[in-house]
Amino acid sequence: MFITFEGPEGSGKTTQIVQLAQWLQQRGHRVVQTREPGGTLIGDQIRTILMDRANTSLVAEAEILLFSASRAQLVRRLIEPALAEGAVVLCDRFYDSTLAYQGYGRGLDIGMLREITDFATGGRRPDLTFLLDLDPELGLRRRQAGRSMGEEWNRLDAQTLAFHQRVRQGYLELAQQESRWRVVDGTEPSEAVQAALRQLIAKRLDTDS
Amino acid sequence: MFITFEGPEGSGKTTQIVQLAQWLQQRGHRVVQTREPGGTLIGDQIRTILMDRANTSLVAEAEILLFSASRAQLVRRLIEPALAEGAVVLCDRFYDSTLAYQGYGRGLDIGMLREITDFATGGRRPDLTFLLDLDPELGLRRRQAGRSMGEEWNRLDAQTLAFHQRVRQGYLELAQQESRWRVVDGTEPSEAVQAALRQLIAKRLDTDS
Repeated sequence: MFITFEGPEGSGKTTQIVQLAQWLQQRGHRVVQTREPGGTLIGDQIRTILMDRANTSLVAEAEILLFSASRAQLVRRLIEPALAEGAVVLCDRFYDSTLAYQGYGRGLDIGMLREITDFATGGRRPDLTFLLDLDPELGLRRRQAGRSMGEEWNRLDAQTLAFHQRVRQGYLELAQQESRWRVVDGTEPSEAVQAALRQLIAKRLDTDS
Repeated sequence: MFITFEGPEGSGKTTQIVQLAQWLQQRGHRVVQTREPGGTLIGDQIRTILMDRANTSLVAEAEILLFSASRAQLVRRLIEPALAEGAVVLCDRFYDSTLAYQGYGRGLDIGMLREITDFATGGRRPDLTFLLDLDPELGLRRRQAGRSMGEEWNRLDAQTLAFHQRVRQGYLELAQQESRWRVVDGTEPSEAVQAALRQLIAKRLDTDS
């Protein structure tokens, strides 16, 4: 089973994924935990370019192509082999991030983004996608608090609030279009979010088996 | 005017471009000389990933997307601004390399490659494209001689001869499809090739003015 996690920075995706991985392993599943951009040696080299705050001259088209290159590598070198061996793959962001951030956020043509995305993924789609939904103002406040504690503050964090609001609306629209989405309230306490995620995954795993 | 140079490694493109740049400057033109992948700060970071021989795990789709990302950056940050200011742009490789190497060479779908390419370039096309045509065996022998003198030997050089022969046939087919192409015999002495290139460019510049 291939599960992806979407939502703004500051929505707590990473923490939730770590806890889900432990829980799934305790239930006897092989778990592969990864993230975008990155997740492979070459993907991490691409991530360095994308996250570098000095790269302010990066144009929108190059940005999309770099995310997609990292994705192509991740799908073929990590996700597909892991799924073939029966693992549960937990991925922090996938192509829905491109649609939300570059499509809805930056206003690039969604149809074109879907074509590039299909080329990158070879058509691989998640079985289940969680949107950790959160008001962008709250997400950014959380991120800024994290930053004062030494968390990385990257190029995408530095966008305007209006941009992050368009991204949120985009996610909510995407979530209505396909049955693989589950929208979870990201303002709930971390423990409550974790409980909700476990329940939804358990339900799906039981249905499949 | 935007002029691109195509052909195998070892066909002498780089040397020819340097000499053409000097000659054009003497004739009073502003000249911008660049190359793919690279040509911008971000493009050079992408070039490092693409040329690293340690990156043998790079999948074909990621390779194309990385070349295209470098290209998107180059077109918007260097080529378009230079053309807008009336410069002659000389570019060592452009999207025809993607069609020849990844399309004809690796067998990826040419229609899909053209779509990604159009996205990357925003539709910008060269006014004139030179193919320095050369038997791949001769090109590889030249590259190997260069390597013993300390030239970089990269990931793409390490392909099979059959691959490079498909690339050559691809270039020759592309050259028949559009009027912007001029095929030049790359086995001729360097001075003869330079003279042929100058004559073809002079003719085109006279027609335009």
